[in-house]
Parts: sequence; C-alpha cells; structure tokens
Amino acid sequence: MSAPDPTKLALNTATTRAKWNLAEAIDGCARHRIGGISPWRDQLADMGVEKAARAIRAAGLTVTGLCRGGMFPASTEEGRKRAIDDNRTAIDEAHALGAQCLVLVVGGLPEGSRDLAGAREQVTAGIAAILPDARAAGVPLAIEPLHPMYAAERACINTLGQALDVCDAIEQAPSSALGVAVDVYHVWWDPALAFAVARAGRARLLAYHICDWLVPTRDLLLDRGMMGDGVIDLKSIRALVEGSGYRGFHEVEIFSKENWWQRDPDTVLATCKERHQQCC
Amino acid sequence: MSAPDPTKLALNTATTRAKWNLAEAIDGCARHRIGGISPWRDQLADMGVEKAARAIRAAGLTVTGLCRGGMFPASTEEGRKRAIDDNRTAIDEAHALGAQCLVLVVGGLPEGSRDLAGAREQVTAGIAAILPDARAAGVPLAIEPLHPMYAAERACINTLGQALDVCDAIEQAPSSALGVAVDVYHVWWDPALAFAVARAGRARLLAYHICDWLVPTRDLLLDRGMMGDGVIDLKSIRALVEGSGYRGFHEVEIFSKENWWQRDPDTVLATCKERHQQCC
Repeated sequence: MSAPDPTKLALNTATTRAKWNLAEAIDGCARHRIGGISPWRDQLADMGVEKAARAIRAAGLTVTGLCRGGMFPASTEEGRKRAIDDNRTAIDEAHALGAQCLVLVVGGLPEGSRDLAGAREQVTAGIAAILPDARAAGVPLAIEPLHPMYAAERACINTLGQALDVCDAIEQAPSSALGVAVDVYHVWWDPALAFAVARAGRARLLAYHICDWLVPTRDLLLDRGMMGDGVIDLKSIRALVEGSGYRGFHEVEIFSKENWWQRDPDTVLATCKERHQQCC
Repeated sequence: MSAPDPTKLALNTATTRAKWNLAEAIDGCARHRIGGISPWRDQLADMGVEKAARAIRAAGLTVTGLCRGGMFPASTEEGRKRAIDDNRTAIDEAHALGAQCLVLVVGGLPEGSRDLAGAREQVTAGIAAILPDARAAGVPLAIEPLHPMYAAERACINTLGQALDVCDAIEQAPSSALGVAVDVYHVWWDPALAFAVARAGRARLLAYHICDWLVPTRDLLLDRGMMGDGVIDLKSIRALVEGSGYRGFHEVEIFSKENWWQRDPDTVLATCKERHQQCC
C-alpha cells in the first residue's frame, strides 16, 4: 500500500497537551506544516474561542474536530439536562471554530449504577436531543466508540457497529449531520471492524484518529503508542476507511504520560510526520 | 431475582494462588463446603496430577474446568506444533481430573506480528486439530473469549459471538465437545451479550466465571474485583445464562494482586460465599 497523503495529517492536541497550550499547538502545526488540528475544550476555554478561531484561520489550519461533547448519562433528570446544555455550548464552540465535527465521548455508567443498557438509552436520547442544534449550526456529530475497557467510566458505546446502530436509531437515512469517529486504538481488535467500516460508508465516517496499541500497555488511559511502536495494522485500517470512501484527515491522538508527553513537542510532531508516512 | 443455588459456587484457584498451593485450595474448598474447583496447570504440576485427582475425589469436589489450554498462534510451524502438543497434554490432565472442560485462552499475536486475522485463523486451526483428542478423552473444550484489552497478548477471540463463530466453523452442529466459557469480566460490556448467550444455548455454555469490574481499574491484568464491589450487573448476566439453559457452576476467578491476593484465603472464600448469595 502506498504511503498516505502527507497533507492529511492532523494533530489532536491531546498529543501535546502536557507541554503546549492551544496557541502553542496552533503555532506548532503551522511550523511543521501539519494542516489539521483538533483542540480540546479546556484548552480552548483557556485561550478563548474567538481568539483561537482567529489564530487557527490565520495559520490556515482545518479544524478536524472539537473534543469533546458527550457524557450524557446521569443519575438525575437535572444531570442529564445539564449534559445536554453543555453539549449545546460545545456545538456553538465547534461552529465558531468551523470544526468538521464535534466528537462525542458519550459517557459511561452514572455514579452507583450497573444499568449499562439504561446508560446506552440515555446516550441515544441525549444525541437525539442535540441533533437539531447540531444541524442548525452545521456541526456534524461524530460518535466515537471507545474501547470496551472504558465502558464503565467514559463511554458505553464500545464498538463501531454499536455506534452505527445509535446513528440509525436516531435518523433512518444517513445525513451529513450524524456519524462516527473511528479511532484505531478503540476498534483495532474488533473482529467485525471491516464490516462496520463498510457499513458506515462515506456518509457516516466523519473522523479518523491514529496512534498505536503498545505491548505491554501499562496504563488503561495514558499509555498509547506512537504509530509504528505497537501492534495495530494501521495500513490495513486506513485501507478499510479509504475503501469505504473516507477522504478526511488522519488525526494523531496520543495520550502518553510517561513517554510522548515528556518529550519536546517539536520532536513529537516531527515524529508524527515521519511515522505517518512510514507506518500508516 | 432469587439468590443463586449455593451449591453452584466453585473456586477457580487463581483466586487464592498467591497464598495457597493446590492441596491447600482443595482443603479450603472442602472446609468451606464449596463444591467445585478449577485448578491451574502450573499448580497442578507442582502437586502432581494423580495426587491432585485423588485429593479432589476424596474431598468430593467437582472439577469445573482445567485452566488452561490454548495459546495457539506462533510465528513458526514448529511453535504451532508445540502449542498443539501442549494442548494434548492438557487434555490428558483434564481427563485425569475428570474436569468438566478444558478452558482455552486462545493466544494473541505472535511475537512481532500485526496480523490479527492470521492469528485468529491459527486459533481455529489449532482448536480443530485438538478437538478429536478432546472428544476421545471426553474432555469438552471451552473457548474463553477474553476482554478486547487482551487481544494482543493473551487471546485474539474477544467476544462471545466471535467464540461461537469459531465453534460453528469447526463443527457445524453443536456437540457436547466444543463450546465456550463465559467470564463476566470479559463480556459484561458487550452490547450483543444477550443475543450471544441465547445463541450459545445449553449445548455451548460449558462454564460460567464470576468476579467484578472495579471503577477505577488500576491494572489491566491483576485488578479484578470481588462480586458486588464493581459495576457488573451479575444478577442479570446469571439470568441470561440460566435462561439459555446453563445449569453448571458459578466459578469465582479473581486476579487481585493488591487486594484479595494479600488476604487470608479463608477470609476470601468466606467472602465469595457471602457475595455469591448477595450479589450474583
């Protein structure tokens, strides 16, 4: 398989968050000629939405996504309403940035609950509630299925097929307003991956995130690997998503407390560019 | 839902392995009137198979399974042959113990490989190779799907549905010789769980393992919880397996380096009995 288009590389700022604020990450992308960026809302708040939007436009970057909306399940009606309100704010922010999507990490079990099916129903209801706002703002919602090891605390949507089921439950015919974010870290193990990617198709594939699964993995959350350092067959997964019609960015998202977060972010970005060409 | 039949409780000796050898675990089960035991092969080798078989019979225990066969994928033909030979030895040991099944932890990616589909093919080929031996010995093979977080290193069969697909690929009609071991820790998150348990049915459901998923989980391998201390809806999963016709034991398997492995095993067994009645 040929190397990927180098202009498709994007930086999810989680990768550099330990050392760079958002302004520094924007400058870093421009300096390294990385054409896409995906900010997180806490860093966006620190910088200010309007200021960030101006800086991103001035640098000529595409905002591949805003991280993140979601976190819908709650043990009270008030908690669920608060989550929906916060998602509406996130939609406004994504609109202000011209983001290609709002990534939804949907949330896990409410405190003290063991009702996974109920949490999943709350997620579907929450997304259905905000979809009209997302449509009105022109901000597609991208449900990100998270690895099953995050089912309790972060996301009770744990396979791509399940995420597509939620999409289909909310809108019968795919539109450009609702789809999925495919992160290789979360889905690489899934025996139904090829089928699910084909099922998603161009209409539902809104974002593609890359990193690697390390052997051994020492921490459930903060030990992701740089592309090429782990066991994920990145070229094959890219072939799947491109074969299904995806033409968007390849967004590097690496949570790595002990390794990449400790390094000079300029080195990290240079490594991302190199590994993108070699290993993806 | 009513409390489970207390005579269905079994001890997987992984739960007490940090403090008790197999002879001590056999005595412990007898002392606590726990009717089933599932030994691991390393402790079995230490005690000696014949001696262990005699002690287990003398104590009146049912051997709910032998842990474990599997680990089929290898990077060389010789490695795969060695794995199959070792599985044949495991079948002999399970036969000597009168075990209700040999649990198969099927193995992950061979060293240096990213070919997950290839590893999965090797697993199917390996199980097909040993199934005649298992039939001849009267030892059912129980494929244990492991949580997706173990796909790289321990088992590339990661959902119950996938395990059943492997069964169906090897034998078209279910016999009593090949099936699955359902461990709540590995499958609790699966949105297709109810469907897969129903699909398995009594013919394929050979073992049922219990513990709990802790929030937070601090270690990928050795931080399982005691039933009731985590977020798994154990009563609902028991209802599923019993609803599908399962009538076997409920085997407690807890890897817990920092907590339960540090405690007096008599306390651990007493807690298992209590929690089995309260939480399962």
